[in-house]
Amino acid sequence: MSEISDISGVSELAVKAQKLDAVDELAAKRAEFVLDTVSDDAADAAGVYLDGNSLGALPAAVPGRVADVVGRQWGELRIRSWDESGWWTAPERIGDLIAPLVGAAPGQIVVGDSTSVNVFKALVAAVRMAGAGAGGGRDEIVVDATTFPTDGYIAESAARMTGCTLRPVTPAEVPGVLSGRTAAVLLNHVDYRTGRLHDLPGLTAAVHAAGAVAVWDLCHSAGALPVGLDEHGVDLAVGCTYKYLNGGPGSPAYLYVRHDLQDRFESPLPGWNSHAEPFGMRSAYEPAAGAVRGRVGTPDILSMLALEAALEVWDGVSIEAVRAKSLALTDFFLECVSAYVPEGRVESLTPVAHGERGSQVALQCEDAGQVMKRLIERGVVGDFRHPDVLRFGFTPLYVGFADVERAARVLGEVVGEAGGEVQGEVRGEALS
Amino acid sequence: MSEISDISGVSELAVKAQKLDAVDELAAKRAEFVLDTVSDDAADAAGVYLDGNSLGALPAAVPGRVADVVGRQWGELRIRSWDESGWWTAPERIGDLIAPLVGAAPGQIVVGDSTSVNVFKALVAAVRMAGAGAGGGRDEIVVDATTFPTDGYIAESAARMTGCTLRPVTPAEVPGVLSGRTAAVLLNHVDYRTGRLHDLPGLTAAVHAAGAVAVWDLCHSAGALPVGLDEHGVDLAVGCTYKYLNGGPGSPAYLYVRHDLQDRFESPLPGWNSHAEPFGMRSAYEPAAGAVRGRVGTPDILSMLALEAALEVWDGVSIEAVRAKSLALTDFFLECVSAYVPEGRVESLTPVAHGERGSQVALQCEDAGQVMKRLIERGVVGDFRHPDVLRFGFTPLYVGFADVERAARVLGEVVGEAGGEVQGEVRGEALS
Repeated sequence: MSEISDISGVSELAVKAQKLDAVDELAAKRAEFVLDTVSDDAADAAGVYLDGNSLGALPAAVPGRVADVVGRQWGELRIRSWDESGWWTAPERIGDLIAPLVGAAPGQIVVGDSTSVNVFKALVAAVRMAGAGAGGGRDEIVVDATTFPTDGYIAESAARMTGCTLRPVTPAEVPGVLSGRTAAVLLNHVDYRTGRLHDLPGLTAAVHAAGAVAVWDLCHSAGALPVGLDEHGVDLAVGCTYKYLNGGPGSPAYLYVRHDLQDRFESPLPGWNSHAEPFGMRSAYEPAAGAVRGRVGTPDILSMLALEAALEVWDGVSIEAVRAKSLALTDFFLECVSAYVPEGRVESLTPVAHGERGSQVALQCEDAGQVMKRLIERGVVGDFRHPDVLRFGFTPLYVGFADVERAARVLGEVVGEAGGEVQGEVRGEALS
Repeated sequence: MSEISDISGVSELAVKAQKLDAVDELAAKRAEFVLDTVSDDAADAAGVYLDGNSLGALPAAVPGRVADVVGRQWGELRIRSWDESGWWTAPERIGDLIAPLVGAAPGQIVVGDSTSVNVFKALVAAVRMAGAGAGGGRDEIVVDATTFPTDGYIAESAARMTGCTLRPVTPAEVPGVLSGRTAAVLLNHVDYRTGRLHDLPGLTAAVHAAGAVAVWDLCHSAGALPVGLDEHGVDLAVGCTYKYLNGGPGSPAYLYVRHDLQDRFESPLPGWNSHAEPFGMRSAYEPAAGAVRGRVGTPDILSMLALEAALEVWDGVSIEAVRAKSLALTDFFLECVSAYVPEGRVESLTPVAHGERGSQVALQCEDAGQVMKRLIERGVVGDFRHPDVLRFGFTPLYVGFADVERAARVLGEVVGEAGGEVQGEVRGEALS
């Protein structure tokens, strides 16, 4: 980080932010979100929300839709809504709304369950597709050791239950460990902690060259950058919908199964919703054709239809435009941090190269917990990742360049004014 | 069924209904539900809703709560609500609200995921508790062959993934097939189709005598009758919350793990929410203590907090009073059907003995699909179960005796007026 800029430097960045906002083709999208309400104890009039990579902001269309789903569809139509309000087909209908955002043709995505549950479905099915345990000798699941932990925990269970061995490695090590023993490989597109974007096309090709099945977790990339599932021949993918897709707290996740693999998808969770004839109430299981095979139990309608309303904000938005703005936002944030934050106080863990950067910036900072607390008090909301990471997510549909400038400026003030003292406090806390 | 009653007989039943409603100690609860709105094409001013065993009616407290969760908790507080609005602890907090309704002490139930997913967790964990595959020779999962199909499908997957054999039998056959090979037994408390109540205490004791683990599905009993999980020593149980618990369409299910078994509960879905230190983001999995171990991924907050509001209707209600009214309702329905429905048109599949009856009445009827369609047109909502069952659910918190009398009367009119013609239509449909 460079030295603190002088006053004229600060003004230059604020002016630059104004200019960037003025030519931002996505700027109007902000009005489709509920953003400028003030919570009781936020010090500033309007906050800067840089935690949309954890929980997306509320799209303005959602409250009215949810009220209708609860009051009319459930309250008045009741059971009839399974047909009349389209409840039954929601998982695949909403999957088709997500599809264009991740580069998938229709008919390959179903929405439902949590990301963890979908990782389990995908990995077990992947191992079965790879012919593991059938004398083929493929008995390893390779998993990103730096991943969000749930993927690793679930992969361990999937390995145990399919007779495989789990091999945790860094993404960089993946190509080197692939072999005739590899059944499936589970990778994150963007690392939740550092914001590093992994090489989905290259790694998928390497996995395929080894004869294994590639499973991608898109939690931190879908809605922030082009994924190109179909284009790059990804086999299976999962993702959540409450980050860049703004589906709401704990909104249902999704599962992608490539068209030509759907007939070979054997779910470890073959609930009645995945049956070829779910209302036949037959004792013998016969899987449905298509993406529907990835469904399990009764879909969670309130959350699912909130998500459907939330996805309306993507009307007319190209994911390429989102990516261009995302990179401009993170570039500008790094520039502002460099200008405002005293040298040596923070260090970026996020790659500088655009090809390796997701839509967040992670700053390592010794007293990160305390710093984030003060940032939030001042209306700049990011999040803290144990033990020493400040994480800032940039959601191009509703974050602007003035927000970025302000966030970096407040960060500079917070770490500048509170330096030694805060570090002392944090050490004290760590002992208690 | 007896002959059609004469006019004076009809009036007697209507008068009897009035008298029963007048002394119904749960009658006031009806006002806590949204019931008397009229859907566009319902012929009658106020319908009779006898499908609460499929989708419970909307509790009046829910719309306001959901609006607050969406608008304020998500829209304004956003990420802070994980702490400040109690989102993070919702699964176990709401589990403790369900606990008294199923006879469980606190700390044994978590809410989340679908029933199917919870059946998978429970059965795999049960097999592991039984020491299957560890040379102990326990390699069979016994499952109710007459169960709601999803339980059988999931049990088949659990058997496949734990190296067990699935043994589907009728509940009556269960005691006879238990042996030193039995690892786990999955049973439904109340049969979804016939409404038959199975002997939970006796079957649980038989399963335990064989050294196996008893898993109960409470979907059709919880909220309708006393379950007594703790009292009867049930090991594991699952249930949905959208029937008698009125949680809304697809609201999250729950999992019960008896206190003394929690340390031995090994989830096949060990998502990060079940970790001892979920925010430690540690690569090694270490399960949490207690019921929390049954959690998987991020909880679905909108649906979960709607359920929490829905459960408020149980304040001050004893499940024994609910059971007493439920039996009175089904007794009275059978009496009215006997009086109003022409001899031979319907036959009850639901046991007459109180000890064998849940809270629904299933009537076999050759043209059931067509009859239910006409009932619904006339405002009497039950449901049709393929191929020939009319199913009527009695939810004591909001169904009264006048509803019951009217439903049976309309049923008598519908099957009386449309008999031969409708049967012809149905046959025609069956050929097409």
